[in-house]
Amino acid sequence: MGSDLTLLDSWPSPFGMRVRIALAEKGIDYEYKNENVLEKSDLLLKMNPIYKKIPVLIHNGKPICESLIMVQYIDEVWNDKSPLMPKDPYQRAVARFWADYVDKKIYDSGRKIWSTKGEEHETAKKEFVEVLKVLEGELGDKPYFGGEKMGYVDVAFIPFYSWFYTYETCGRFSIEAECPKLIAWVKRCLEKESVSKTLPDSHKVYDILKSVYGF
Amino acid sequence: MGSDLTLLDSWPSPFGMRVRIALAEKGIDYEYKNENVLEKSDLLLKMNPIYKKIPVLIHNGKPICESLIMVQYIDEVWNDKSPLMPKDPYQRAVARFWADYVDKKIYDSGRKIWSTKGEEHETAKKEFVEVLKVLEGELGDKPYFGGEKMGYVDVAFIPFYSWFYTYETCGRFSIEAECPKLIAWVKRCLEKESVSKTLPDSHKVYDILKSVYGF
Repeated sequence: MGSDLTLLDSWPSPFGMRVRIALAEKGIDYEYKNENVLEKSDLLLKMNPIYKKIPVLIHNGKPICESLIMVQYIDEVWNDKSPLMPKDPYQRAVARFWADYVDKKIYDSGRKIWSTKGEEHETAKKEFVEVLKVLEGELGDKPYFGGEKMGYVDVAFIPFYSWFYTYETCGRFSIEAECPKLIAWVKRCLEKESVSKTLPDSHKVYDILKSVYGF
Repeated sequence: MGSDLTLLDSWPSPFGMRVRIALAEKGIDYEYKNENVLEKSDLLLKMNPIYKKIPVLIHNGKPICESLIMVQYIDEVWNDKSPLMPKDPYQRAVARFWADYVDKKIYDSGRKIWSTKGEEHETAKKEFVEVLKVLEGELGDKPYFGGEKMGYVDVAFIPFYSWFYTYETCGRFSIEAECPKLIAWVKRCLEKESVSKTLPDSHKVYDILKSVYGF
């Protein structure tokens, strides 16, 4: 299986982590190629000519792009183990809604924390915490977003935990103080090897983001 | 069936049109509620508290939000007639990629045509035409984006045809001159009653957009 499945990725990417977690949940071997984001490989440019971005999953020579689409693809192709998407169409729609919400909100609002100053910075922090609180509200008292088992929304969201330290350090606030249930959920996710072995050290993420964004 | 399915919508919305086309393709009756975008109903605010936006599909009292998620939901629940999503997982991933591309690119780049001036306006026009050309390239010589039959990507994209006249009038360019194959595809889609009966008159769309955006 390994030889026909390749992931073009970059280790600090939360989008790439989603795919790595999904593949680990399914127990699938694959070749990992770490891309240099500043000097994109010919393979990446050929496999994702539209966005020219990692991650890209190459299966039997054919590319799949966009991390949430990749996670759904993995779940559909290897559907015999660790199903990520609920079976019920309504629950699937709900899962897609929240994964999409994570996609639309976390990365962009999070990045503003270190790319703005003064009042804009304070607004960015407030907005980011509001987004987290909306997600915490959706989680409620469930162990995972999908219920009793880790699923699609968890896989979409948990990679950003490795960026939490950077958000907190640049914003000088505590996510646990704001969203204790969310951090309890993070700890539950980290008990899974698919997550704990995928998520990089938060301090390493901070160092690389600091060097890239110069904050 | 009609009584337990309601669509909160606004007639010029290309996102709402997606849902109307999908429901028409499936031959499903539903209650249509035209929302006043400037004075949102309590029902809309209750059913979509996160984005507070149309369209929202309410099925058996439960809301489904975000138009592409709604189209997938409709396709999964009423899967016995006019399947929109391909069966093959790879083709599904490709369809999701292009529907997502339409979502990320058309509305935002199109809107810039009437909301900018001078050099910015010229750049916006160029960008918009480039997006259309990418889509035309993906269409190629196929009758529809999904192949021989109208499918998910067609449903995602064709509603914007009703906005083409506005883009062309504000940008003073011809989409047919730039993308003849795309217009041939539009004509094929319009042969379907689900599309021709859903898409509003382009001049009416122009009038309402002009009054809302004041161009």
